Amino acid sequence: MPGPPQEPLYQRGDSIFFEDDTLFVLDQTALPRLHVYLELTNPRDVVDAIRRLAVRGAMAIGVAGAYGVLLGATTARGGGPDAVTVAAREAIAEIGASRPTARNLFWALERMEAALRESTGADPSKMIEELRARADQIALDTILTNRRLVEAGQELIDKGAGVLTHCNSGPLAALRYGTAVGVLIEAHRLGKDIHVYVDETRPLLQGSRLTAWELGNAGVPYTLMPDGAAAYVMSRGAVQAVLTGADRVAANGDTANKIGTYGLAVLARAHGIPFYIAAPCSTVDLACASGDGIVIEERGPDEVRCIAGQPTAPRGAPVLNPAFDITPADYISAIVTEKGVLRAPYPESLVVARG
Amino acid sequence: MPGPPQEPLYQRGDSIFFEDDTLFVLDQTALPRLHVYLELTNPRDVVDAIRRLAVRGAMAIGVAGAYGVLLGATTARGGGPDAVTVAAREAIAEIGASRPTARNLFWALERMEAALRESTGADPSKMIEELRARADQIALDTILTNRRLVEAGQELIDKGAGVLTHCNSGPLAALRYGTAVGVLIEAHRLGKDIHVYVDETRPLLQGSRLTAWELGNAGVPYTLMPDGAAAYVMSRGAVQAVLTGADRVAANGDTANKIGTYGLAVLARAHGIPFYIAAPCSTVDLACASGDGIVIEERGPDEVRCIAGQPTAPRGAPVLNPAFDITPADYISAIVTEKGVLRAPYPESLVVARG
Repeated sequence: MPGPPQEPLYQRGDSIFFEDDTLFVLDQTALPRLHVYLELTNPRDVVDAIRRLAVRGAMAIGVAGAYGVLLGATTARGGGPDAVTVAAREAIAEIGASRPTARNLFWALERMEAALRESTGADPSKMIEELRARADQIALDTILTNRRLVEAGQELIDKGAGVLTHCNSGPLAALRYGTAVGVLIEAHRLGKDIHVYVDETRPLLQGSRLTAWELGNAGVPYTLMPDGAAAYVMSRGAVQAVLTGADRVAANGDTANKIGTYGLAVLARAHGIPFYIAAPCSTVDLACASGDGIVIEERGPDEVRCIAGQPTAPRGAPVLNPAFDITPADYISAIVTEKGVLRAPYPESLVVARG
Repeated sequence: MPGPPQEPLYQRGDSIFFEDDTLFVLDQTALPRLHVYLELTNPRDVVDAIRRLAVRGAMAIGVAGAYGVLLGATTARGGGPDAVTVAAREAIAEIGASRPTARNLFWALERMEAALRESTGADPSKMIEELRARADQIALDTILTNRRLVEAGQELIDKGAGVLTHCNSGPLAALRYGTAVGVLIEAHRLGKDIHVYVDETRPLLQGSRLTAWELGNAGVPYTLMPDGAAAYVMSRGAVQAVLTGADRVAANGDTANKIGTYGLAVLARAHGIPFYIAAPCSTVDLACASGDGIVIEERGPDEVRCIAGQPTAPRGAPVLNPAFDITPADYISAIVTEKGVLRAPYPESLVVARG
């Protein structure tokens, strides 16, 4: 029997890595035109990168957030243990306030807080070493988790399937393997002859800018289309499954993901197409009873009023720009996790998977 | 009893008018940033303006097409009657091939063809006069039709309603009054205290660029949002009706309209919200038995790959860009026409309305 999968902490092409007291993140706002790494050296840089979506995707911001806490601690390296603790806690608070919806960020910050508590009484350099080890562990766990998830998801993807996805949940969003897009890249690698329909995902076009780029890099056949074309391709029989990532899964299975996801779930049901979510167990929030308890981030109006810096709506047009919506559990055919494919009743299967 | 409504052929602010052998059309691709009239002097100009959507909207392209035939005839003014006939028929063929889906264009061209036949044997200047009279009549009929439609639609819009609309079907698309957006502007004018949710309508953003602009000009309260947010606002109880225009209505009530419309109809049903179409009888194609017979225009990939001239997807990304989709009659709660509000069974009510 083979042992558990092994993965290096860093490998060429990773979109996030930590080196020389610096967090390097591939700037997702510049893709696909420019391939630029930002160098983040303190928690404020990390908050800024998360807020403006230079680093985005539930798992990616979890890992970036963990290293952000480490950066906070390192700024206090010259002080005593208390200074390190204060700086790390400030970083946790500041980073925790950057984006409200994705569960993984809080999961990562809770692990960093635990590492901080456990190293209480150590000298500053030892504390920082512990925090570094914990952040590295979070990154490595994320990579291994996604690898298992991508393998577990294969049972949902049939040979020759057309699969529709929304937003971005590939290696950029979730480190090295990705979640939903990771499952699709793996299906292609296994020779399943799939075709992916990519929603462009307005307002920020994560589908056209990021998912299309990732699929193209991996050689997966895909078609990019406006979000409004989803029902059309479903009605033409081109789609056998809808598969997206998730930012938070409540205890009853209600799921927050990019705005537009809920509508796809409704359309999938109307066309008799299964609707799947791919998310690691760290995205599950058992403390949140249902979708009603999930805070939906409302982003600024200019993301909708302007495109590429050009105004495309009347000046001052009133705008609604929710970053996420909630798909009720009832619409979700299955949730792929690193522990296998979960099905309803989710209140039970999610608890078992979270162990 | 008041007589039939009277309207001038032209009035200040009209987006299409004919003067000095020139067709003036407000360039809809430049709005809302620039307010520029194009001066079209031959059929090729008209075809180009229709193809690149400088003039768009089912009824607007019908009127522009009619004047385009007149422009063709005027270019042959110096020749004999045969030269005028040949030039007009060439214009009809060329303009008829500009966009395939909207019924009104063909309706207008058929009326111009009839005028041409009726003036056979007249001298060239008399023929051109007849064609001018027919094109003016088409424009005036369109205006009067829309005015009646806008009044007839009021029975569908309740006081205080939230109404979601898609693409643009206001005065720009349908001369002076509009259809769906015209109904909403009239509802506001009557003090119904409505609120309009405007889908931005990718890829060409007719919602943010045109509908938001028209509603703002008319003082109608509205909220602009990405197409993917429609299901979210429905789930929040903010929408009491969905109302869109149409490009072609088949004999059984199946309706072609901007890509994304069919998805809205499915979402509306899932949320118990009525879905309405607003279209004059000239949009009804009794020769087309069902939606299966409607040709869906597929537009170029760069409308999806680029925004405001900036690439937003990988170079050469494969794209699906259907301009329209088909909403099956079964999803349509009512169709507002200038002859009143039609309901199922549409095979009967449409025949009665077409008279």
